[in-house]
Amino acid sequence: MVKLKVALIQMSVEEDAGINLQKALLRIEQCATLGAKLVILPEMFLCPYQAERFAIYAEKEGGPTWRALSAAAQANQVYLVGGSFPELDSAGKLYNTCFIFDPLGRPIGKHRKLHLFDIQIRGKQSFRESDTLTPGSQVTVVDTPFGKIGVCVCYDLRFPELARLMVQQGAVMLAVPGAFNMTTGPAHWELLFRARAVDNQVTIFGCAPARNTHSSYVSYANSLVVSPWGEITARLGAEDDVLITEIDLDYVEQVRQELPLLSQRRLDLYEVVQKG
Amino acid sequence: MVKLKVALIQMSVEEDAGINLQKALLRIEQCATLGAKLVILPEMFLCPYQAERFAIYAEKEGGPTWRALSAAAQANQVYLVGGSFPELDSAGKLYNTCFIFDPLGRPIGKHRKLHLFDIQIRGKQSFRESDTLTPGSQVTVVDTPFGKIGVCVCYDLRFPELARLMVQQGAVMLAVPGAFNMTTGPAHWELLFRARAVDNQVTIFGCAPARNTHSSYVSYANSLVVSPWGEITARLGAEDDVLITEIDLDYVEQVRQELPLLSQRRLDLYEVVQKG
Repeated sequence: MVKLKVALIQMSVEEDAGINLQKALLRIEQCATLGAKLVILPEMFLCPYQAERFAIYAEKEGGPTWRALSAAAQANQVYLVGGSFPELDSAGKLYNTCFIFDPLGRPIGKHRKLHLFDIQIRGKQSFRESDTLTPGSQVTVVDTPFGKIGVCVCYDLRFPELARLMVQQGAVMLAVPGAFNMTTGPAHWELLFRARAVDNQVTIFGCAPARNTHSSYVSYANSLVVSPWGEITARLGAEDDVLITEIDLDYVEQVRQELPLLSQRRLDLYEVVQKG
Repeated sequence: MVKLKVALIQMSVEEDAGINLQKALLRIEQCATLGAKLVILPEMFLCPYQAERFAIYAEKEGGPTWRALSAAAQANQVYLVGGSFPELDSAGKLYNTCFIFDPLGRPIGKHRKLHLFDIQIRGKQSFRESDTLTPGSQVTVVDTPFGKIGVCVCYDLRFPELARLMVQQGAVMLAVPGAFNMTTGPAHWELLFRARAVDNQVTIFGCAPARNTHSSYVSYANSLVVSPWGEITARLGAEDDVLITEIDLDYVEQVRQELPLLSQRRLDLYEVVQKG
């Protein structure tokens, strides 16, 4: 049985980007000290989740936060799925981007959120990321010695086609920095992680910011790990916390043999195809 | 608010096909008397769920059971999703088939199970439908005055591509005769129905046989109705029972507007395509 120790950093996010970054770096170090080889940060760990303020916090790829994450991956010898923060590109566009580093600090992938979070639920949650953000255009699967890891951000998880594409490209794990809210979280957070895990027979990690009821956008938190059989094997509550857990890397293969869904797809009748 | 009264017949299934059919016909009549306009029978309502015995119970399209279902739909003026029974075609092949009738008794669709149930879970459930059955090759969506209804059978529900195809073809409801077992039922029955409902923003009906712990294959039962928001709005237990409930046909559109997942799909990047 091959094990992998994984850490999900469910940190509270403050107004001050410098404080947030320092907190993230300290936690990465603590998790590595406890043996974690794969560390995941939450969506928008650098700044409050407010679309109209993303530009204030935005940084370029290769900028200070990017370099600090790279250095932390290297110093602590971990694979780091760097949550996300607002990325400013050379054309002045903003993205909700997750940068991923290997234990040498090298960038091995970046995921710009593909599906922007635009919802308007009567009398409850409204949000329009597309007012300030541009969506990405790439499916992201990175290679590690533990197996391929698909990476997407929050609302991306709602689209079963994307998880399927990542699995078709070899992913055996999915890492999802996310921040559902107090409407969609209780309704769908656990359900969607479990469903993607069961349908695609992957281990899946959801890493959210801690809940801060004083924020304009209140994160549901509840960071979790789900097995390829759909069991929640580890889960946090609402508080600022860290989840460290060991997963059995062989279990994916066992589930895929016992319930051979992926090979039983009727690819003569349908297929999820990648375009563009 | 436009309402539709729906009935799910969670009947116990005996050895005797005649008894099973009579029970189904009686229940259809009772449900219609109580105002149901859409009635759904469970998977393999005519015979025990044993692959090696399907041939004994098999009937042709247009045969006695088919005619009885057609007559029941007409006599009771209901849309009838006729669960499933083993269908024998003119070439001597067997299928797990759901026939669907309108209130004039006319056949408006048939669904031959596309994904055969072949699993082997260590120390738990094993089953091989493909030893005796042939899979179908058609996606099934039928038109009714209440909206289009996608129909699939049990294991078909495990494949998110199929639900998506049915919705791409206009389905606003899915009717799924099914029979999960005591391993996969507790693990995945509710999860899969809720996930397909939330991802595709449809009302979904799962209709199973009652649990009979003396059978070689023990149905999980738990027939249920799930809203387009993923709420279980009605659910049975393990017993021989009937679920009659009213659904709000307008709610699909409300959910699709508030959380516009279907229009937010990145069809420039991926698509579920139908082949063959």
